Amino acid sequence: MSARFISLEGGEGVGKSTQARRLADALRTRGLDVLLTREPGGSPGAEAIRSLLLEGDANRWSPGAEALLFAAARADHVTRTIDPALSEGQWVICDRFLDSSRAYQGMAGGVGDAAIQNLHQIGSDGRLPDRTLVLALTDTDAAARADARDAGCPDRIGGRASDFHAEVAQAFRDFARDDPERIRLVDASGSEGEVTERLLAALADLLP
Amino acid sequence: MSARFISLEGGEGVGKSTQARRLADALRTRGLDVLLTREPGGSPGAEAIRSLLLEGDANRWSPGAEALLFAAARADHVTRTIDPALSEGQWVICDRFLDSSRAYQGMAGGVGDAAIQNLHQIGSDGRLPDRTLVLALTDTDAAARADARDAGCPDRIGGRASDFHAEVAQAFRDFARDDPERIRLVDASGSEGEVTERLLAALADLLP
Repeated sequence: MSARFISLEGGEGVGKSTQARRLADALRTRGLDVLLTREPGGSPGAEAIRSLLLEGDANRWSPGAEALLFAAARADHVTRTIDPALSEGQWVICDRFLDSSRAYQGMAGGVGDAAIQNLHQIGSDGRLPDRTLVLALTDTDAAARADARDAGCPDRIGGRASDFHAEVAQAFRDFARDDPERIRLVDASGSEGEVTERLLAALADLLP
Repeated sequence: MSARFISLEGGEGVGKSTQARRLADALRTRGLDVLLTREPGGSPGAEAIRSLLLEGDANRWSPGAEALLFAAARADHVTRTIDPALSEGQWVICDRFLDSSRAYQGMAGGVGDAAIQNLHQIGSDGRLPDRTLVLALTDTDAAARADARDAGCPDRIGGRASDFHAEVAQAFRDFARDDPERIRLVDASGSEGEVTERLLAALADLLP
């Protein structure tokens, strides 16, 4: 069975990074070779773009410029890291990918979904994950978790207003509804172990 | 008469930067308020992207990633520098703009002209100069001038093979043929003063 490309998505504070690590560990326990990576970043060029994206003033970039930078970082990440790993038979778990750009810049940022998909086609040949797992909480639970984590020091994007984050959460729900084969909503409430079990269940048809 | 946006284009070694300065001076002598700027760069965000583009290995970026980065830098430059200057009545002279991306990444780099125009639409609302002046030399003359200037230390893009630069020169000729109202070829041979006079002649219908 060939290697698979899995992305983890969701708004701020839903536990993506923790669950990405836990999921990678769970797959390794099953004997799979796993590369855990994250966006923006995941290759030397993309990491350089990452600092432009996450540092500085909240209005540092226009929504269009921000979308172009994310697409450039993703193009580098796909070419230098994700595609080579898959070719060598590694499973790839990526903490955020295209659907974050669709939700944050495309929908909540007003750039539009068609434009974001267009940028992805130009930069990354339109490559999609085999499965995208969206961690979903109620908006109130998500805001509480994000506040607790950032303790007043969010980055450029995490620091935006709560309306913005509600639009992001709605966008992810819409994407899952429109492409149910690739994109699965996973309840992010409960213990870390419970959430990891739900993620594994949502991958069951792909696992060896 | 409202302010105008003029771009200067051409391959390596045709004398663009010198002529941009001379043209700005000539317009100031005529009493115009002129902003001289250049790409990639021209605004703080775009300058940060510029160093990613011009430093490092020749194969640091895939052609698609490079096109996305240029478009991101241009979006920032248009929003933060060019549009505000034009709104205040300043003439803008820009050393390289969209047509460089069309020639270098679009045609010679294989990304395609439609994709480059698409990126420009998304990042910069498709803004075009009122006039684009393409400095043109025979390929042999251009290579000799570029060699003399770089003295063995070209940047990432200037250092590419001569076939690449011949394709760039051909692309600029094609653009001028396809859009003769906006894009004018200007003979870059002869003295600096002669070339500046030709540039002014190619702007005569726009000047007050």
